[in-house]
Amino acid sequence: MGEVQTDHLAHERGRAEFDVEAMKIVWAGSKQAFDLSDRMARVVASDPVFRKDNRAMLGRKELFKNTMRKAAHAWKRIIELRLSEEEASRFRAFVDEPAFTDLHWGMFVPAIKGQGTDEQQQKWLPLAYKMQIVGCYAQTELGHGSNVQGLETTATFDPKSDEFVINSPTLTSSKWWPGGLGKASTHAVVYARLIIGNQHHGVHGFIVQLRSLDNHVPLPGITVGDIGMKFGNGAYNTMDNGVLRFDNVRIPRNQMLMRVSQVTREGRFVQSNVPRQLIYGTMVYVRQTIVSDASIALSRAVCVATRYSAVRRQFGAKNGGLETQVIDYKTQQNRLFPLLASAYAFRFVGEWLKWLYTDVTQRLQAKDFSTLPEAHACTAGLKSLTTSFTADGIEECRKLCGGHGYLFSSGLPELFAAYVPSCTYEGDNYILQLQVARILMKTVSQLGSGVQPVGTTAYLGRVEHLMQCQCSVQKAEDWLKPSTIQEAFEARATRMAVACAQKLSTMPNQEEGFAELSADLVEVAIAHCQLIVVSKFIEKLQQDIPGKGVRKQLEVLCNVYALSLLHKHQGDFLATGSITPEQASLANDQLRHLYDQVRPNAVALVDAFNYTDHYLGSVLGRYDGNVYPKLYEEAWKDPLNDSDVPDGYNEYLRPMLKQQLHLARL
Amino acid sequence: MGEVQTDHLAHERGRAEFDVEAMKIVWAGSKQAFDLSDRMARVVASDPVFRKDNRAMLGRKELFKNTMRKAAHAWKRIIELRLSEEEASRFRAFVDEPAFTDLHWGMFVPAIKGQGTDEQQQKWLPLAYKMQIVGCYAQTELGHGSNVQGLETTATFDPKSDEFVINSPTLTSSKWWPGGLGKASTHAVVYARLIIGNQHHGVHGFIVQLRSLDNHVPLPGITVGDIGMKFGNGAYNTMDNGVLRFDNVRIPRNQMLMRVSQVTREGRFVQSNVPRQLIYGTMVYVRQTIVSDASIALSRAVCVATRYSAVRRQFGAKNGGLETQVIDYKTQQNRLFPLLASAYAFRFVGEWLKWLYTDVTQRLQAKDFSTLPEAHACTAGLKSLTTSFTADGIEECRKLCGGHGYLFSSGLPELFAAYVPSCTYEGDNYILQLQVARILMKTVSQLGSGVQPVGTTAYLGRVEHLMQCQCSVQKAEDWLKPSTIQEAFEARATRMAVACAQKLSTMPNQEEGFAELSADLVEVAIAHCQLIVVSKFIEKLQQDIPGKGVRKQLEVLCNVYALSLLHKHQGDFLATGSITPEQASLANDQLRHLYDQVRPNAVALVDAFNYTDHYLGSVLGRYDGNVYPKLYEEAWKDPLNDSDVPDGYNEYLRPMLKQQLHLARL
Repeated sequence: MGEVQTDHLAHERGRAEFDVEAMKIVWAGSKQAFDLSDRMARVVASDPVFRKDNRAMLGRKELFKNTMRKAAHAWKRIIELRLSEEEASRFRAFVDEPAFTDLHWGMFVPAIKGQGTDEQQQKWLPLAYKMQIVGCYAQTELGHGSNVQGLETTATFDPKSDEFVINSPTLTSSKWWPGGLGKASTHAVVYARLIIGNQHHGVHGFIVQLRSLDNHVPLPGITVGDIGMKFGNGAYNTMDNGVLRFDNVRIPRNQMLMRVSQVTREGRFVQSNVPRQLIYGTMVYVRQTIVSDASIALSRAVCVATRYSAVRRQFGAKNGGLETQVIDYKTQQNRLFPLLASAYAFRFVGEWLKWLYTDVTQRLQAKDFSTLPEAHACTAGLKSLTTSFTADGIEECRKLCGGHGYLFSSGLPELFAAYVPSCTYEGDNYILQLQVARILMKTVSQLGSGVQPVGTTAYLGRVEHLMQCQCSVQKAEDWLKPSTIQEAFEARATRMAVACAQKLSTMPNQEEGFAELSADLVEVAIAHCQLIVVSKFIEKLQQDIPGKGVRKQLEVLCNVYALSLLHKHQGDFLATGSITPEQASLANDQLRHLYDQVRPNAVALVDAFNYTDHYLGSVLGRYDGNVYPKLYEEAWKDPLNDSDVPDGYNEYLRPMLKQQLHLARL
Repeated sequence: MGEVQTDHLAHERGRAEFDVEAMKIVWAGSKQAFDLSDRMARVVASDPVFRKDNRAMLGRKELFKNTMRKAAHAWKRIIELRLSEEEASRFRAFVDEPAFTDLHWGMFVPAIKGQGTDEQQQKWLPLAYKMQIVGCYAQTELGHGSNVQGLETTATFDPKSDEFVINSPTLTSSKWWPGGLGKASTHAVVYARLIIGNQHHGVHGFIVQLRSLDNHVPLPGITVGDIGMKFGNGAYNTMDNGVLRFDNVRIPRNQMLMRVSQVTREGRFVQSNVPRQLIYGTMVYVRQTIVSDASIALSRAVCVATRYSAVRRQFGAKNGGLETQVIDYKTQQNRLFPLLASAYAFRFVGEWLKWLYTDVTQRLQAKDFSTLPEAHACTAGLKSLTTSFTADGIEECRKLCGGHGYLFSSGLPELFAAYVPSCTYEGDNYILQLQVARILMKTVSQLGSGVQPVGTTAYLGRVEHLMQCQCSVQKAEDWLKPSTIQEAFEARATRMAVACAQKLSTMPNQEEGFAELSADLVEVAIAHCQLIVVSKFIEKLQQDIPGKGVRKQLEVLCNVYALSLLHKHQGDFLATGSITPEQASLANDQLRHLYDQVRPNAVALVDAFNYTDHYLGSVLGRYDGNVYPKLYEEAWKDPLNDSDVPDGYNEYLRPMLKQQLHLARL
């Protein structure tokens, strides 16, 4: 936590009505997970090589050089400390700087593991595990994002030499965006259309070496570079997202990833009996980590905004006394506390997704594909829901810090800029919700035929009840009952889905109808996904939760999460008749009372995230609340303050002030 | 428009069903305004000194040096071209780079004009007009934002020397944020608590020289510098937002701005008979310009997103043909077209605010203060509504561009980062809506007493009708009637206001009740402000609008604006019984049909903004739609691409790849 001299938030911490240490365990998932995380965070925070506060001042080259330095140093430390895979992964996460190693470990290695044959894995994985090669994942192209089938890069089999010839036939076929591709990677898994003779056989992955292992110079036929600056300062500019073109680049046949499909020596295209559904399993895994990252990003922003809202005072001074802490204002609470509750909600749904992934994997191994479509859709929807909400939530936290949130040293601008790509990568958030909607429409259409909905769609099996049930709330406190909340969310999601399905069924062409109603369908999918998050929070509360007052806090947060959503989307609830206007108003009254219960615990609830000042990277979010002296100190570090009189005064400002501009060379 | 070789959007432009040139005039406000704007934009765009595409690559010092260069060059050109004040102001706007001159012209000069005596104006304004001095507006402090009465800087009258002594008694009293203060300004209007003897006389403005006019070195007792990097790259980092501390800085008595209050030679504090309401007039002016700027910022983002949505293709290819333009997807339309409609809506409400300012000014001159509170609240609310919506809208446009929107060269990250402070400065957007709510609650409470509501609150005079009227919509087309829309919005705003007022009246303490209900009150204020924007759009359509098909387009946009708001906030409409669930659903059906009408005109509707490629500053938004070759070209300009092998390879990457990290110095 850094050296704490005076704790300006001690009073706040003293007000907490629960055991913060116990909550830390709940947040981390287990005592073991907490210890591991805590240890790794401290190792990184105490190492000066990993400082982050200078990122805004570094030019692009220096910034990237620094990223390589950190990556190399991290790797050195990981080896020296003999860290396990899990420890190493946490260690890298706490370095908190997007780097080519993310793609090496997160995409290149898994691609080979998932799509390579045993032989290919034996050849390539040891090299990758020792980082004797650095790899990336080259799928998207300048003209092609989400639509993998639209990729233009070609891999043509040459039977004479037993090689594939890789080409970029058009400008729009240039690989574009892959992280780590621009400057660092020696190898890439490249996705290209397989061509044998005149036949196209779809898109497949190929291991291609890009640079010499001796001097890192790009190999013949390879044009590779960085695609330039991205959103923000620091942020993702530490990553060498790259552009890549191929001009008759030849690779041996055995560098096509052949677990699912093969090309034989004779040039025959063969499909293996490995089920293609396996790739969905991988997607479930990747998206589960994205949901888990959403809760981390959101909780960081909320931690900053909560602490600073307790430090900052504005208006309301009585008799020359102190002004009011802004966290005491209801408008501040109404914006901040639902975000705090959401951070916890996303944490728990992320935990559940881990279980889901295990479950799906076990079923896949037993060749049971029955739950896969629903599980796949559910992770897609939750990825979409949590990342969109988190991106907006970080920016809201920045605004909640007033003007100072706009300073780089608040940490929030960089957190936002580094986070927002999550809304686009691994599936655009709107396209993902349409996938969810498709499953929902299918499920609804089969309800009559006796097919039982599974997993998170199971509630649709109670369609008859949910279409006509009436919410029983008569006074504000009635909204505290989990079953009441759950049923209201189920009724809303069911009725919206059924209404859309009915509208669809009146349309002559189902596909066109789906396109026509797609905006409504996205809303249906969101209602479904919100229900999942609410349900999983409620389920969490049914578990054994040790620690004084911990369960009580989580109950309050669960209710804040659900009721703030209900208020925000009350149009859905009212339009479907799931609740009455009076009940909506009572929910809102209850929400205000809940804020009073959150208020004394707010700072302790963000302390429970256990973030070091290094990881948080925010002057406003400092653990000790000593904000203003540090803001003042930070300011003077800007290069503009190197001299009292700025560079350029003599050339530009002085001639203007002295009315001699006509003489100046501008 | 730059050199157009092939117009890749020609087909889109050919589909337009209206006279784009005529729409340009409507957007600009008049033929004269269009010509002026068009001329200035072209002068700036054709001048290489004003290039903007390199901002992301400049370090802070070079960036600021470049800003000074542009400011000096702009001033030189303004003099050479003998531009009028209005022309000069447009010229500076098209330079499109936040600079100290914004504060000089926009805050320093107006402060002296508004608060200085005739004598003070005669002394200081000529110096400022010739830029022999550069001034800024030093109000906010490190610990004090919106609350002017909380400022801590002191100005103590010393009767012996007939001077004020300015001091920064605490760290939190450091002036913090003022633009232009850090490095460029020679003078500032400083707000400080006036102290005479032991008496405090509130906060007043003082003209203080900060730097030597000979060599720009800060004067004795002055500590001044830049507060450091802010959100994003380029963006507001061209501005030298500053920190300032005073240590017994002495200024002559006649440098207190004395139009409203004076200190005499003897140290007597005297209030003049100049009405204090005048400062509200200034606020109406400033906020009117902010609303007008919101329509500009939003329209820029919408222009980029619309053009690129027409260029970009994704999925839906049939028989190997072209993929579908993303602008043809309903989800894209449902996100984009309401933003397009909002840009137009904000433009027209901004136009109306100009009229309102003139009206208020005339009344003030005639000592008629009756409409001032309502006008003041209304501008506050519209500032809040339009800036919040625009900030979110820019980010939504960025997401609508998919992954490429994340590139700096898309222009959208910088537009967003430079725009978001609007939500905080000149009144935090939530605090402003509470001001609106206060007026609304007061108005409602006086309804029984025969006080007629004025201006934008006039509709509350029809409270009896609006509390019980029923929306007459029976089929989707019924929603096209302006009077139907208007009444639905009036009923919703009235009923929400009345419900809140009733709840308030049951509370024992009005002030505490207001605080308790503040989140609801903000919603009431927003409903009221949305009604204003809808009404002013409808009023605009009642004017004479020349040009083939122009009125028709604006009618469609007005309906898109209103019905998309109605859908987004359907909870309000349903909870208040202003419409039924069936009518809400019909509104949504109608909205979808309206999108079909916008679609063929979308590109032409953004062409009507008449933005040059220079001003737009976006590869994705290029007029000619030639996006991909230019994106590719831009990428190679990044400094990281100066060499194939990145700086740092030998120190960091090579030892890692060669397993020699233990030997490396990291």
